[in-house]
Amino acid sequence: MNHPAPPALARRPFPAELLDQLRSAFGERLSVSEAVRAHHGRDESPFDPQLPDAVVFAHSTAEVQTIVKLCARHGVPIIPYGNGSSLEGHLLAVQGGVSIDLSQMNRVLSINAEDLTVTVEPGISRKQLNEALRDTGLFFPIDPGADASIGGMTATRASGTNAVRYGTMRENVLSLTAVLADGRVVKTGTRARKSSAGYDLTRLFVGSEGTLGVITEITVRLYPQPEAVSAAVCAFPSMADAVRTVIETIQIGVPIARVEFIDSLAVRAINKHSNLTLREKHTLFFEFHGTAAGVEEQAQLVQELAAQHGGEGFEWATRAEDRSRLWNARHSAYFAMLQLKPGCRAVTTDVCVPISRLAECVVETENDLKASPLPCPIVGHVGDGNFHVAILIDPDKPEEIDEAERLNHRIVQRAIAMDGTCTGEHGVGLHKMDFLVEEHGADTIDTMRALKRALDPQNLMNPGKIFNWAA
Amino acid sequence: MNHPAPPALARRPFPAELLDQLRSAFGERLSVSEAVRAHHGRDESPFDPQLPDAVVFAHSTAEVQTIVKLCARHGVPIIPYGNGSSLEGHLLAVQGGVSIDLSQMNRVLSINAEDLTVTVEPGISRKQLNEALRDTGLFFPIDPGADASIGGMTATRASGTNAVRYGTMRENVLSLTAVLADGRVVKTGTRARKSSAGYDLTRLFVGSEGTLGVITEITVRLYPQPEAVSAAVCAFPSMADAVRTVIETIQIGVPIARVEFIDSLAVRAINKHSNLTLREKHTLFFEFHGTAAGVEEQAQLVQELAAQHGGEGFEWATRAEDRSRLWNARHSAYFAMLQLKPGCRAVTTDVCVPISRLAECVVETENDLKASPLPCPIVGHVGDGNFHVAILIDPDKPEEIDEAERLNHRIVQRAIAMDGTCTGEHGVGLHKMDFLVEEHGADTIDTMRALKRALDPQNLMNPGKIFNWAA
Repeated sequence: MNHPAPPALARRPFPAELLDQLRSAFGERLSVSEAVRAHHGRDESPFDPQLPDAVVFAHSTAEVQTIVKLCARHGVPIIPYGNGSSLEGHLLAVQGGVSIDLSQMNRVLSINAEDLTVTVEPGISRKQLNEALRDTGLFFPIDPGADASIGGMTATRASGTNAVRYGTMRENVLSLTAVLADGRVVKTGTRARKSSAGYDLTRLFVGSEGTLGVITEITVRLYPQPEAVSAAVCAFPSMADAVRTVIETIQIGVPIARVEFIDSLAVRAINKHSNLTLREKHTLFFEFHGTAAGVEEQAQLVQELAAQHGGEGFEWATRAEDRSRLWNARHSAYFAMLQLKPGCRAVTTDVCVPISRLAECVVETENDLKASPLPCPIVGHVGDGNFHVAILIDPDKPEEIDEAERLNHRIVQRAIAMDGTCTGEHGVGLHKMDFLVEEHGADTIDTMRALKRALDPQNLMNPGKIFNWAA
Repeated sequence: MNHPAPPALARRPFPAELLDQLRSAFGERLSVSEAVRAHHGRDESPFDPQLPDAVVFAHSTAEVQTIVKLCARHGVPIIPYGNGSSLEGHLLAVQGGVSIDLSQMNRVLSINAEDLTVTVEPGISRKQLNEALRDTGLFFPIDPGADASIGGMTATRASGTNAVRYGTMRENVLSLTAVLADGRVVKTGTRARKSSAGYDLTRLFVGSEGTLGVITEITVRLYPQPEAVSAAVCAFPSMADAVRTVIETIQIGVPIARVEFIDSLAVRAINKHSNLTLREKHTLFFEFHGTAAGVEEQAQLVQELAAQHGGEGFEWATRAEDRSRLWNARHSAYFAMLQLKPGCRAVTTDVCVPISRLAECVVETENDLKASPLPCPIVGHVGDGNFHVAILIDPDKPEEIDEAERLNHRIVQRAIAMDGTCTGEHGVGLHKMDFLVEEHGADTIDTMRALKRALDPQNLMNPGKIFNWAA
């Protein structure tokens, strides 16, 4: 494995006494089977699995508390597990320990439609949540490609196609409940829309990747279903033209709901995977939300900008089923791209740059990729300055892994030089720990480390992720 | 003084050696004069001043670093000072120490118009910032009543009348630079619109009230000046009617830019202070931003809702000078209200509740206030569920102070019972430390305390604020 990895960490002892205690507390919901452990020791990253010693399927905050207290007593690591869709190795048990599977904690605890909030357990997926909201006239907009769990999305500060309009998990989590490393349960906030009541513990846990505690309840914001929705597809002569259309859209303040870039190679992958017949050119997907008149007005403005940049026709998807076909195709892009190269895995980049630098960043990246032997489709949440290159590698070929990491590093260094970030929405996990130091500098990482040590002095919570325990 | 205060804290020794060192580094920009110290040991809270031992006027991050390192070496407290407009006692030197006056660090460091961001020094005020942006077509929306400094607004997680549309400092600070208690300088983020790059140190500093470090640079989001703006005033038969109009406006998703409640007593104060002739009834101020058609459409919808709740006419302020007269009056409300009772000071409440509970909360509060002998005008950012009661007291009458605190406590307990917060935008400071424990519980406060101790083990940074150092 040539992917950069943290210094090899020793697995910690897993005492038989802990296993007995967990078994007597959880019975059948404790598993040590190879298959279950293997399932929980991997994710969608290119890394080889690293298995936890045991998996417990938890049903409540109190049960999570029991597991954490037992593990703390024995100094055993804890890895929270939602839907397994991480791209960055978050779920690998690099020091062994207990994987707490939260997928059965998937209830909606309370819908407060009048306040535009809902409180859920962490295991519910974004699609399950929107299904539960169906009759309320409200929706939850954050949509990473995978049908991730809300807990996992909170832990990675996820976003997706709607973030340009509705924000990310950072803006949309109002409050959460977490079990800390010492087993105490804290609630970080209230359901008030804003607050100046002390340190923002909510935001500290959002994006903490399981390293500060196990999130067991989350209150998120909801939005009224827009009165009118309209989507469109437009092809462009070059990446730069597509991206410049987006930049101008943002700069003039059009409240566009979604604007996604899909390069010609990714379009080909999507066409094949989702049975579409899009022109295989660099393409933007748009969506507009608002009143009927507002949507009309936004669409008109954006259509003019696109025309100025050589956009070839605007194909409208006005029927709900056409729109949903389009966005399902977009959300399946990751799996579609994997099929461009049978048996491959993807090294996925996730840089995000200030929008003024986006065209330059994408064009320079395109030049890098043209010179590479690996297929590298690009998709991007370009309204946010965020794009992904899926570098498709044969995991058995070390030279392809090396080439992927070389490209990845160049892309990240370029983004950092442009005052951007190595990760817009996937998180750091195992894969970007070195990049994080390049991005923030040692003193900022030290500050993060001091916070981790204050809340988790035994380093039990998803150890080995984000940054090294020792400086 | 009958206001609740933290346990009396001993002033810490202020060594002559430190004074010499500061004098040799800062010359005339070090002051120990009684007048300067008195100015820096007070704010707009009802508390008696507590003077720092010295005041230093800093000009750069490096200078702040010098001061912090010297103070750290001598174990002397540090209190960052912006414009002195805190309402909660943030600036009082309860243990003595050095007040770092940042008002001369008021430069705009870079305007990135294409990215809709600006980087500033902390001493610039919100009006100075918007003046500097005048020719860019952009604006910075966050507007507490006072012309607060951007540093102070960051430190208190401030908001104001535009938060219902544009969010608070929580959503609008992209990144910041801070000098930590040990003198190290950290930058918390990049200019990317979103990021999953490790712990959200930006949000940890936003709202930390000077207790974790001194903020010396801030990058905030900007917004395009809307194409069309329209403002209106409407009077209502009761508080409940006004508030219900607002609740329905939010619930149907009208992207209203501002919606402010002013009760009849506050209207009287504003009329007198700002030479207006508003009807002295419970009133809403509205503002709509968007395209010409969009503003028209929003205004139409809201006008219909208001009519359904007995709103009596909509008076439009379409000319820029009329709007600015209206909003200047609103921003002067605090000082206008003080003039209702000559020589008074105000105990200002700041609760924020989920919007579904707002009507009930306001009506019950109104009943409390009717039964009180003190004049208590109410203004509120009701689109956020946040309102302020200015309880006007004679600071020389202990019985009035007691009555004010009794009312304050009732209002806070009601908000907490409704899953709201004791402070929507003013911060905790000295005044709400007990309320914070009621709101969050001891374990959550312990978690905040653990973070503080990790980053500031000597308790040098604005000690005695937000929560007690010892549990």
